[in-house]
Amino acid sequence: MNTFHLSKLENFCEAIFLSIGCPSNQASQAAQVLIAADLRGVDSHGVARLSGYIRLFEKNRINPKPNVSIEHETLSTATMNADGALGLVAGPLAMNIAIQKALHAGTGWVAMKNSNHFGIAGYHAMMALEHNMIGIAMTNASPLVAPTHSISRMLGTNPMAFAIPAGKEPAFVADFATTTAANGKLEILQRKSQEAPQGWIQDNVGNSSINPNELSKGGALLPLGSDREHGSHKGYCLGSVVDIFSAVLSGANYGPWVPPFVAFLDPPSNPVGDGIGHFFGAMRIDAFRKAEDFLYHMDNWISAFRNATPIEQSQPVIIPGDPERESEGIRRVSGIPLNPKVEEDLRMLAHKFNIQFPESI
Amino acid sequence: MNTFHLSKLENFCEAIFLSIGCPSNQASQAAQVLIAADLRGVDSHGVARLSGYIRLFEKNRINPKPNVSIEHETLSTATMNADGALGLVAGPLAMNIAIQKALHAGTGWVAMKNSNHFGIAGYHAMMALEHNMIGIAMTNASPLVAPTHSISRMLGTNPMAFAIPAGKEPAFVADFATTTAANGKLEILQRKSQEAPQGWIQDNVGNSSINPNELSKGGALLPLGSDREHGSHKGYCLGSVVDIFSAVLSGANYGPWVPPFVAFLDPPSNPVGDGIGHFFGAMRIDAFRKAEDFLYHMDNWISAFRNATPIEQSQPVIIPGDPERESEGIRRVSGIPLNPKVEEDLRMLAHKFNIQFPESI
Repeated sequence: MNTFHLSKLENFCEAIFLSIGCPSNQASQAAQVLIAADLRGVDSHGVARLSGYIRLFEKNRINPKPNVSIEHETLSTATMNADGALGLVAGPLAMNIAIQKALHAGTGWVAMKNSNHFGIAGYHAMMALEHNMIGIAMTNASPLVAPTHSISRMLGTNPMAFAIPAGKEPAFVADFATTTAANGKLEILQRKSQEAPQGWIQDNVGNSSINPNELSKGGALLPLGSDREHGSHKGYCLGSVVDIFSAVLSGANYGPWVPPFVAFLDPPSNPVGDGIGHFFGAMRIDAFRKAEDFLYHMDNWISAFRNATPIEQSQPVIIPGDPERESEGIRRVSGIPLNPKVEEDLRMLAHKFNIQFPESI
Repeated sequence: MNTFHLSKLENFCEAIFLSIGCPSNQASQAAQVLIAADLRGVDSHGVARLSGYIRLFEKNRINPKPNVSIEHETLSTATMNADGALGLVAGPLAMNIAIQKALHAGTGWVAMKNSNHFGIAGYHAMMALEHNMIGIAMTNASPLVAPTHSISRMLGTNPMAFAIPAGKEPAFVADFATTTAANGKLEILQRKSQEAPQGWIQDNVGNSSINPNELSKGGALLPLGSDREHGSHKGYCLGSVVDIFSAVLSGANYGPWVPPFVAFLDPPSNPVGDGIGHFFGAMRIDAFRKAEDFLYHMDNWISAFRNATPIEQSQPVIIPGDPERESEGIRRVSGIPLNPKVEEDLRMLAHKFNIQFPESI
């Protein structure tokens, strides 16, 4: 596995986005969101997805020169039309509006339609941190998940992210799919030809399956909780709330109508809205109490949880965001390792757009 | 099991609350929230809890004549001090403020400290529905749940509720603990001397347990997901977000410092805030898009999910809120059945306060 300098990989992505016609500030923003995933160790959502975005662009399903606009607003809300933009571009624009609303009204909430895959939810939520705000980001996604009691794929993995500022401690950053396992974890098993644990997947008649390729045969991912006895109805509720906030509020497609992220599958012919949907929130901590008091108690919260008695001494309790921050610390210095298939994919893009591919470290 | 008329049971509860000194409007509100749980089939959170509230009152841990006040506010937020009130009383007051804020600012968000157990979260969230708003309610709770990798009880079952209005369809109402199983489910197993499924509980050294009495021996409930492989870190994140929104934002006790709900256990001697905390939200649907469009698409969402292909024909997909609404429909007509132990408990209260206990149907 070759390793690449952060800045070189980011410049490469930016050049690709420029090549498809993105304005330079948008190309730079998109590259930054993409690289943030690789930095944070969420390899499934980083440069590995670049060629997929390009294929969607080639099918006219991504607009490189979008007119992202506010269609409706109140003091604390806005509904935005991403105009078919890369979600990597539209997401930060929406989050900035949420932050602006929060500066004035205490909180800001943005529902966005007509967008595309927005990378890691955590990037957008974390934009709030530097403003001493709590950030929230969620998105719906192509239907791969069956609700409890069903064999129909009705929901995406519909992630939610919460970023909460602390004082001396690093921020609390939770970013997770509302399924038992994210789709990226299945892809890793597929590559390694390994079996999945029970409780992640069901086959096309609803039996539990350990085959990571089951989805290609009509199977489905399971909501967080895995089965009814272990609370899958709660995971189904969470995924539903993400879908409704992201799409029924914004006017995007929802449930089984969400367009697929892959270019070789066409969007449904009977859309119920525009593109995919996201939902963003920003809450000023000093809209609730003195910021210094919040930060003090957040530090105390984090410290108490970090020091909770572990089951195994070698595995302490993890504060959400710790592993990703550690990955970022390492990869900023040592570079970003790329799976050979991902590197090959990027080299093909380099060839296609006549852009030099960076040398590995 | 004897069955009682809704109104008679509600009047009885109201009389008990009046007896401990609640003003009449508050006694009536508290009884209504309590009975709503029994109506909706959430028997663990209804009149079964009345004697527990009274024991807390007798230990001066519930203030029957609270001065519930706003301590801080912005256009879309408020932080409230419940002054030691019954959560059954303080919750609706807070939710009304959230609704008032939303009327003006599009959304309203209230963090509340110094409160007590607030009954079913769904009651509060559903208050938003008649205003064509989405309602959100969450609360922290006595620590019974171990974070992933730990044996320490650091979180409560920390429920979250979402109520989302629809047009012709009944509203979507999700109300669930962020654990694999709610504590009420354990209590049912304890009463029946039955074993719990794997994945609900761990013992005091972190091994999986099927003993529903394990918590009395230092065991813990598990976050939604049950174990790391099945996403318990996500349930731990959700419970943490509920705790932080409810208590670190409001100034209540959080994590292991949350006071126990039972009177025979004393609150921690080193509190980090006041009482327990809640968090409420109200979002006007027309703050995002035309209400009629939202309601049309919400109906379409519900109908699509209700008609998703079931695994077993006899068990269709459930829309969150359906079972509780069905229970309410039946119990409004046929009355509320009471477990004999609960009835005995209520008869003792009747005797103590010299109030006539209603006759069964």
